[in-house]
Amino acid sequence: MIAEISVVPVGAGESVSRYVAEVLKVIRSRNLKYELSSMGTSVELDNYLELGELLQEIDDRLVEMGVGRVYMVVKIDSRVKGGSIEQKKESVMEKL
Amino acid sequence: MIAEISVVPVGAGESVSRYVAEVLKVIRSRNLKYELSSMGTSVELDNYLELGELLQEIDDRLVEMGVGRVYMVVKIDSRVKGGSIEQKKESVMEKL
Amino acid sequence: MIAEISVVPVGAGESVSRYVAEVLKVIRSRNLKYELSSMGTSVELDNYLELGELLQEIDDRLVEMGVGRVYMVVKIDSRVKGGSIEQKKESVMEKL
Amino acid sequence: MIAEISVVPVGAGESVSRYVAEVLKVIRSRNLKYELSSMGTSVELDNYLELGELLQEIDDRLVEMGVGRVYMVVKIDSRVKGGSIEQKKESVMEKL
Repeated sequence: MIAEISVVPVGAGESVSRYVAEVLKVIRSRNLKYELSSMGTSVELDNYLELGELLQEIDDRLVEMGVGRVYMVVKIDSRVKGGSIEQKKESVMEKL
Repeated sequence: MIAEISVVPVGAGESVSRYVAEVLKVIRSRNLKYELSSMGTSVELDNYLELGELLQEIDDRLVEMGVGRVYMVVKIDSRVKGGSIEQKKESVMEKL
Repeated sequence: MIAEISVVPVGAGESVSRYVAEVLKVIRSRNLKYELSSMGTSVELDNYLELGELLQEIDDRLVEMGVGRVYMVVKIDSRVKGGSIEQKKESVMEKL
Repeated sequence: MIAEISVVPVGAGESVSRYVAEVLKVIRSRNLKYELSSMGTSVELDNYLELGELLQEIDDRLVEMGVGRVYMVVKIDSRVKGGSIEQKKESVMEKL
């Protein structure tokens, strides 16, 4: 299962990079395989319960930083047969 | 906390309404306040752990129906001071 | 073609309802069939060029209001055979 | 302006990589700066009209390939002062 997480702190200024950096620190602290892109961070997870715990920790960290409102967009690609971040990209690149 | 959930079964035919109906049944079975729109279903939740459990139950149901790949888009609006589906809509309507 | 538009003004305060109200005014001024939900506004459009013009007008309005950064999430459901906001919801409700 | 585009062909089989490869070919044919990730492709654009044209060309290509229903998720980050894909990532990485 791959989940791409985009976090937008609302009412915390126009520059959000220091908050996004904290999101990455949370992800790294959980030893998850991840991929940073300009519009979100994709992570490999075992299931949705793990996703819920990760999102809760991210939200808690932003609230600790004084963010009063967190807007998130999470896109999930879950296949019964599984699939990794690298496999998805390779299967596209080889068809170019 | 409000989460809007959009589910796209991949490889399960062009019409997806019977799958979306199952998503609604899962949400209803958990007695959650919800709002159905043409592009997703918004629910009021206490936290992200509850979200993870809900998404897991939805995915499990779709897999039971034979869906091999589930694509989801979840948009989350989480405020420290809280906020309901109705309050959000009212605060917009009164400014029209 | 149905597009659900969610707009998050970044760095313009925690309450965003007055901006969302402006988005609705832009949509209404273009006589589009729309559906307001707590997490976005769905509109019926003919094609993606019309979508581009609508989004540009929305962004211009928010910039006029002093918003320096606009984050949008647009979800699009485009079927060759077409489909309306009401048809999508009815096809789900009748299967409950 | 940065737009991340995710395309899900609906009813066209569980594997979608050949369609995503076509999306990339369309983007490349327009000489846009882009970034491929496992969950979408981010592009740098001048405005929303250009975005509308790009999405239309992508949809047309998929319909030519026989896709009857296209689901897209487009996330947009538009700043009055501008900003590139690389600048966004650098401003996060330097805060880690």
